[in-house]
Amino acid sequence: MKDYIAVDWGSTQLRGWLIRNGQCVETKQLPMGITRLNGRSPADVFAEHLAPWRGAQALPVLMAGMIGSDAGWQAVPYLDCPTAIDAPGRQLCAVAEGVWIIPGLKIEQDGDFNVMRGEETQLLGACQLAPAECYVLPGTHCKWVQVVGGGVRHFATAMTGELHHLLMTQSLIGKGLPAQQPDDAAFEWGLEKGLAQPSLISELFVARAARVLGGLAASSVSDYLSGLLIGAEVATLGQRFRTSAVTLVGEPALNARYGRAMKARGMMVNSCSGDEALLAGMARIMHEQD
Amino acid sequence: MKDYIAVDWGSTQLRGWLIRNGQCVETKQLPMGITRLNGRSPADVFAEHLAPWRGAQALPVLMAGMIGSDAGWQAVPYLDCPTAIDAPGRQLCAVAEGVWIIPGLKIEQDGDFNVMRGEETQLLGACQLAPAECYVLPGTHCKWVQVVGGGVRHFATAMTGELHHLLMTQSLIGKGLPAQQPDDAAFEWGLEKGLAQPSLISELFVARAARVLGGLAASSVSDYLSGLLIGAEVATLGQRFRTSAVTLVGEPALNARYGRAMKARGMMVNSCSGDEALLAGMARIMHEQD
Repeated sequence: MKDYIAVDWGSTQLRGWLIRNGQCVETKQLPMGITRLNGRSPADVFAEHLAPWRGAQALPVLMAGMIGSDAGWQAVPYLDCPTAIDAPGRQLCAVAEGVWIIPGLKIEQDGDFNVMRGEETQLLGACQLAPAECYVLPGTHCKWVQVVGGGVRHFATAMTGELHHLLMTQSLIGKGLPAQQPDDAAFEWGLEKGLAQPSLISELFVARAARVLGGLAASSVSDYLSGLLIGAEVATLGQRFRTSAVTLVGEPALNARYGRAMKARGMMVNSCSGDEALLAGMARIMHEQD
Repeated sequence: MKDYIAVDWGSTQLRGWLIRNGQCVETKQLPMGITRLNGRSPADVFAEHLAPWRGAQALPVLMAGMIGSDAGWQAVPYLDCPTAIDAPGRQLCAVAEGVWIIPGLKIEQDGDFNVMRGEETQLLGACQLAPAECYVLPGTHCKWVQVVGGGVRHFATAMTGELHHLLMTQSLIGKGLPAQQPDDAAFEWGLEKGLAQPSLISELFVARAARVLGGLAASSVSDYLSGLLIGAEVATLGQRFRTSAVTLVGEPALNARYGRAMKARGMMVNSCSGDEALLAGMARIMHEQD
């Protein structure tokens, strides 16, 4: 088993894992995503924070995420879908001796457009950890990915996480709210609404009106909105992807929220951790480099 | 004909019209909405900026909008729908000698919640200027109102204007965009998408991906997004309100955008100006006070 370094270098965070004998022996997480480099180059940040791990053997380094965008180290072209799920690992882009960026995937057909960077590696791992025909990767920009016969046939992105953040911090809905408290009933109420009426444009304001009229506690708006948005997403993309069995790839708490929405739609749900999937994908790519 | 002062006092703006012999002889617009009073009371702002118009005759003053909310001059209870369209004018709330606030309307039934303040007065005017069974009042929070037999049966709110603003100024979609240019084709493309796929949660990110992949000019994102949101709204609420004839009540440019979406759905569309509707509503309420 080769030793190597796995890196998830996104917009806001840089995370690294030092892998020896197939085990992670050290990790680091730095607030040095590609939008937070304050004028330093990715190569400089790499030299300071990751290169020391490489040691005398000059361990190979695999990187995924926005580091491959035009605002990152080097613009790595997206691979066009449909494509084989293991295609990214076979088209790595070298940015330094023994340092590679994994390309992302794109959709560009019939007026439909989509992109991912980083999730292609989680996907590769998830299909070993918990095989399914549809993978859902919750987060700021949740990806739904249809995998058929070892190929990524199609994917879509829901802006659920970003919308929740925007609405809570910047919109009239979130204005003047007290600290939010966990409220399972509010989440459930939002979920029912979102599943039944996935067209958000007319439902969002109801969150505001319900609070003004006393139908929703001010401290429960976040959970209500979380339910509404996740419900709308699962109703919309569950129907578009016409799938009855899904693997969720993300943080346990978020996986659980999506799982409730999916089970309410009669879907079979399996889950794995986003980080475990990422590292399994990295391991597979690394071992296939021989 | 009585002389009077009409006031639209909203969240961000205070607008007044001095009406003599049925004609507007003077107007004012101040950035002194109820969220921008910097610690001054509405009564003080009124005394300084509007009271001088009242003169020796102490002209009556009719006010509509957020001035009647709990953050305004005085919390004026909403009237419950269904209600007669002219009910607000018969239940004015006096906040000073000869100074009245027009109450807003609310929906509060079967887990559905909605509120309006100010639009009830535009509605009253619009039903004289351009009668219909359904009125649509575009803006930051667009109202759709179903009027049957002289009564407001139901209404809904679409956060279209606020969402457009949030997405363009705060989200990844709007990040790093150059100055926007009018692009009719981008609006039309967005409109088709929104009408066909009104569930925004999966369509918003396409605006980002299309720009990244070169399918949408960076300077056209605003118009694309405008089409997408308006299309989604018209598809969703047009279906919910099951109406074939609508009166649009708003600014001409925005009315025109909504009109295009509605005509694409086969709806008959009539339009009037939001300000004319407001003043017609104020006049009717004033003249019915005898």
